Amino acid sequence: MEDLEGGVDYLADERKTAQFDLQAMKILWAGSLHRFQVADRMARLVASDPEFQKDNRVRLERKELFKNTLRKAAHAWKRIIELRLTEEEASELRLFVDQPAFTDLHWGMFIPAIKGQGTEEQQRKWLPLAYRMQIIGCYAQTELGHGSNVQGLETTATFDPDTDEFIINSPTLTSSKWWPGGLGKISTHGVVYARLIIEGTEHGVHGFIVQLRSLEDHLPLPGITVGDIGMKFGNGAYNTMDNGVLRFDNVRIPRDQMLMRVFQVTREGKVVQSDVPRQLIYGTMVYVRQTIVYDASRALSKAVCIATRYSAVRRQFGAKNGREIQVIDYKTQQSRLFPLLASAYAFRIVGDWLKWLYMDVTKRLQANDFSTLPEVHACTAGLKSLTTSVTADAIEECRKLCGGHGYLCSSGLPELFAVYVPACTYEGDNIVLLLQVARFLMKTVAQLGSGKHFGTTVYMGNAEYLMQSRSSVQKAEDWLKPENVLEAFEARSLRMSVSCAKKLSEFSNPEEGFQELSADLVGAATAHCQLIVVAKFIERLQQNISGEGVKDQLQALCGIYALSLMGKHLGDFLSTGCITPKQASLANDLLRTLFSKVRPNAIALVDAFNYTDHFLGSVLGRYDGNVYPKLYEEAWKDPLNDSIVPDGFHEYVRPMLKRQVRTSRL
Amino acid sequence: MEDLEGGVDYLADERKTAQFDLQAMKILWAGSLHRFQVADRMARLVASDPEFQKDNRVRLERKELFKNTLRKAAHAWKRIIELRLTEEEASELRLFVDQPAFTDLHWGMFIPAIKGQGTEEQQRKWLPLAYRMQIIGCYAQTELGHGSNVQGLETTATFDPDTDEFIINSPTLTSSKWWPGGLGKISTHGVVYARLIIEGTEHGVHGFIVQLRSLEDHLPLPGITVGDIGMKFGNGAYNTMDNGVLRFDNVRIPRDQMLMRVFQVTREGKVVQSDVPRQLIYGTMVYVRQTIVYDASRALSKAVCIATRYSAVRRQFGAKNGREIQVIDYKTQQSRLFPLLASAYAFRIVGDWLKWLYMDVTKRLQANDFSTLPEVHACTAGLKSLTTSVTADAIEECRKLCGGHGYLCSSGLPELFAVYVPACTYEGDNIVLLLQVARFLMKTVAQLGSGKHFGTTVYMGNAEYLMQSRSSVQKAEDWLKPENVLEAFEARSLRMSVSCAKKLSEFSNPEEGFQELSADLVGAATAHCQLIVVAKFIERLQQNISGEGVKDQLQALCGIYALSLMGKHLGDFLSTGCITPKQASLANDLLRTLFSKVRPNAIALVDAFNYTDHFLGSVLGRYDGNVYPKLYEEAWKDPLNDSIVPDGFHEYVRPMLKRQVRTSRL
Repeated sequence: MEDLEGGVDYLADERKTAQFDLQAMKILWAGSLHRFQVADRMARLVASDPEFQKDNRVRLERKELFKNTLRKAAHAWKRIIELRLTEEEASELRLFVDQPAFTDLHWGMFIPAIKGQGTEEQQRKWLPLAYRMQIIGCYAQTELGHGSNVQGLETTATFDPDTDEFIINSPTLTSSKWWPGGLGKISTHGVVYARLIIEGTEHGVHGFIVQLRSLEDHLPLPGITVGDIGMKFGNGAYNTMDNGVLRFDNVRIPRDQMLMRVFQVTREGKVVQSDVPRQLIYGTMVYVRQTIVYDASRALSKAVCIATRYSAVRRQFGAKNGREIQVIDYKTQQSRLFPLLASAYAFRIVGDWLKWLYMDVTKRLQANDFSTLPEVHACTAGLKSLTTSVTADAIEECRKLCGGHGYLCSSGLPELFAVYVPACTYEGDNIVLLLQVARFLMKTVAQLGSGKHFGTTVYMGNAEYLMQSRSSVQKAEDWLKPENVLEAFEARSLRMSVSCAKKLSEFSNPEEGFQELSADLVGAATAHCQLIVVAKFIERLQQNISGEGVKDQLQALCGIYALSLMGKHLGDFLSTGCITPKQASLANDLLRTLFSKVRPNAIALVDAFNYTDHFLGSVLGRYDGNVYPKLYEEAWKDPLNDSIVPDGFHEYVRPMLKRQVRTSRL
Repeated sequence: MEDLEGGVDYLADERKTAQFDLQAMKILWAGSLHRFQVADRMARLVASDPEFQKDNRVRLERKELFKNTLRKAAHAWKRIIELRLTEEEASELRLFVDQPAFTDLHWGMFIPAIKGQGTEEQQRKWLPLAYRMQIIGCYAQTELGHGSNVQGLETTATFDPDTDEFIINSPTLTSSKWWPGGLGKISTHGVVYARLIIEGTEHGVHGFIVQLRSLEDHLPLPGITVGDIGMKFGNGAYNTMDNGVLRFDNVRIPRDQMLMRVFQVTREGKVVQSDVPRQLIYGTMVYVRQTIVYDASRALSKAVCIATRYSAVRRQFGAKNGREIQVIDYKTQQSRLFPLLASAYAFRIVGDWLKWLYMDVTKRLQANDFSTLPEVHACTAGLKSLTTSVTADAIEECRKLCGGHGYLCSSGLPELFAVYVPACTYEGDNIVLLLQVARFLMKTVAQLGSGKHFGTTVYMGNAEYLMQSRSSVQKAEDWLKPENVLEAFEARSLRMSVSCAKKLSEFSNPEEGFQELSADLVGAATAHCQLIVVAKFIERLQQNISGEGVKDQLQALCGIYALSLMGKHLGDFLSTGCITPKQASLANDLLRTLFSKVRPNAIALVDAFNYTDHFLGSVLGRYDGNVYPKLYEEAWKDPLNDSIVPDGFHEYVRPMLKRQVRTSRL
């Protein structure tokens, strides 16, 4: 997206070599013409508003940074109201403001929790207040001592039948709520998760709406201790957010503030399961994970955009026509960068598919069809894990691909990394999730031959063939055929799962076996998830794709994605006998050909993400490629350059220089 | 190292299960009893001095942070003089202060450059001033447009025969010096690298001593523009350093400020090569890279120490005897953590060996024996690249191994990561270095059968056997035999190099082939470097090792290092036919056994690093394991908690909450 102020476009030559319809690719990336237009409009709106300027963010100390966030959140809310934005537009606007804020949790967790777990009456009471931001809410689940293991949470909610109240309490230090965003300094309310206790009997973990701060003076209500948990990784980044700590000293709330859509406590202290199926919560989970996968493709594409543009600007070694070679022309650079570019597209495509899956599962749930849930759960858990892990590593790789300058905050990459990495931990630790996938796979493998395989495990129905098949690839171009790629990935995944199942069966205690073999199981789960992404990419290529040359580029990217994965996990493919070393070598040859095919399109392929310079926040990734003058300009803005002689020089350095002067003056 | 103030040791039970002599391991880790004692003394000295306290570092804004660094550097210098510390002690003291400062470059680059490249006369003039810190120097090589390609530097030094001076100039924006540490605000002098020009003829890049700032008022001298380049990755971290930008507008310096040990310019403007061999510079290079490898093992061991201790403290899921399971007991955790623990030991051992190599090469250079230089150059370049890349990734992996809390600055891991990653770029970009190793390997392979192989390539003398050998491993325990491990790594490395050489020979233009195959060549270079580490680890095991059980533990770690590498690069081993899938599976089985062997020793193995809580700077890595109360305590120190209602609330949030109140009060 051009933010040019009539300046020279230093990447103009790079843009001329593109062999596809850029606008069509932009629309494909956005998902639809409508989504493209909304995003484009909101991105420009934010980029052109000086209130949303963000380039001083990394230099602000914590309090200033936090105040800066409050100001932006208020301004965003003001603009949303003034412009009468739709919910979709408002959400895009907040996205492009690109600064984590308490509003993310209010809109993204607090409101959905009430919608998903509250009764209709509760929704009628709380949602209008939340929608108008007359209350601000957070999602208080994680505790100091418990993250992944939700059933291990220690906060208690004890029913008092005398007063018809719950008593919320933090019995231990480790039961302190810890991490919830927006909690530290801002939220007036929270959905608090606690173990329900009635007459000494535990009834599992449930959500309770608890008011935390006075709506008059914003002070914590009696019995509540609340604060910020301190600095987190990186400059700017998540330090704009008030992740909080929260303790309850027997705080009382009315009974009707327990979220009771599924599980209810009566006036008499009886527990009642409502007729709303518990599985409904899975719908929300699919939605949240779909969002995370989509976010992964966005974060990854930002990093790739920066690294690709700067690789075309930067020159080093080997003068060609009197100028040094563009770094992007080195095969080592291509072999590290282009697979990440391909991954960005792959994750976007799988994210689009998850949007469809969410709709599908929602429809089924409404029709009381829970049959696809285990498969959907495994597949979304796995894709969340896969895409976030890859993206976190890839952002850092992109930073390294920018050489030394990637280490400067003005490159945008340090902040992008620091703000992104929590995605590997929140909404399910990535390893824990892969182990859940592995459990599902072991169950599925136990049913091989049953003919019951569907969705992302449909290939397991073909087990007899896949267990003994040998790839028919004979020359490099054979790897261009989707069926060859798919067969290799399917055979590898199936064989790894079957091999784990076989080893597991040798243990008398299956749980012990699962524990002992967990590293192998993680490997099998990873193979299955990678297959899903490859399969969805290939499926997308078989659907309608408009725009000249667009399909060609996507085919090349799909090949790069699959074959570079094959190279990275070659041990799997060879040890399971799915392909031969010779075939692996042919795949490697083809990969180099595909790199050459993508090279002239590289800049246009990242232009297709349609990111403003504001959103990228990177001097190295500037649309116009005018990197060096801007780096130079940016340097002088550092507070250290406010004075020529720095604070502390006269106190600490001058005495050192002047000590025991024995020699003549220089 | 115990920093206990009489508190409870929550890891005491873990320490009881150790099966080796901790003190002996501490001495082995330190390198010798003497080195252990010096390090121990200096570490305690720093840890007990309130002036060196560092736990507020991540919260300081840039100017305060920088002033804090100046104060510590001055205090360190004061203590060094007061206590009459030896050079070794002073250097250890600076190390344990653990805060990058201008003094690092003064002692580590400026002084060595003058020692290595200055004539005796120049050394007599400049070194005493530098040793007394009456001048403070930096090393100004890298430019805005040139990092790796030193020969591409653009700064010019033009000889003016009329005045017997050099004119230092920055002819372009990209010629601005960029990155040198200590330059931005503090250095009075710099060794500046520039293209020497005499009467219009270029004579390569040389070093010049240039005064940058007045010794009276610290203002930049006429013609000099100098400042800080701005914020870098992370909180605290390298932002304590004034990496700088520097431009020269025809600045004149006397002729005798060119460093002329090897290459001289006479009064008449004639260039003269001295009789000092140019190869001498390689000695310095080996020294610097040895230091980097040593630093890698230190950074990695810090991260591993934090992650290991917290993995023993943290419990999650699966109640056992009423308590949840320690995270360190999960095989997934072990399979990620223990290979990193093994790598820390492996890198320390290879670092010790490089110390020997440096002495060996110094002796040879003094005897005009340059025969080992190419091999030494390749091997140090490769090990620098390998150890720094692995360490950077491993620190981040350790952070993830700590779950969500690793994201807090109080875990120490974010700062450790941010401060470490530049090691992948400075002193040679890691990929560029691997390509240098690959070039050396291709030359070596061309001489197969010549009988001329020595040092780290001695295995290539055994090429005939290694090219067709098949591993004789038949059961898991066979992988305990060093000869089996070594043979697999040697065969893999040789075969990858030979395969590259073969493919290269198919290109009519060798340079084009090298470019096209560079990703494969990087793979071959990596295999060779990994072999070196494995081989040196095995060699060390065959030397004298004192202390009960120490050798046992090192053997287990060596096995974990080698076999986990084999698993990670299984594609290499299988595609070259060095081992079979069955043998790979046996290696995997043995790996799990070795994990169980290390498990009861894990805490003691990280205690052996002998790090103070001050040096670790991590609440999660505390010696006493008392994590949660300290995390809680630490949170309240954040400036955001200075006031209950945060700055900006009344201005920005309250109006939002109070807008259009239509419903009743809550």
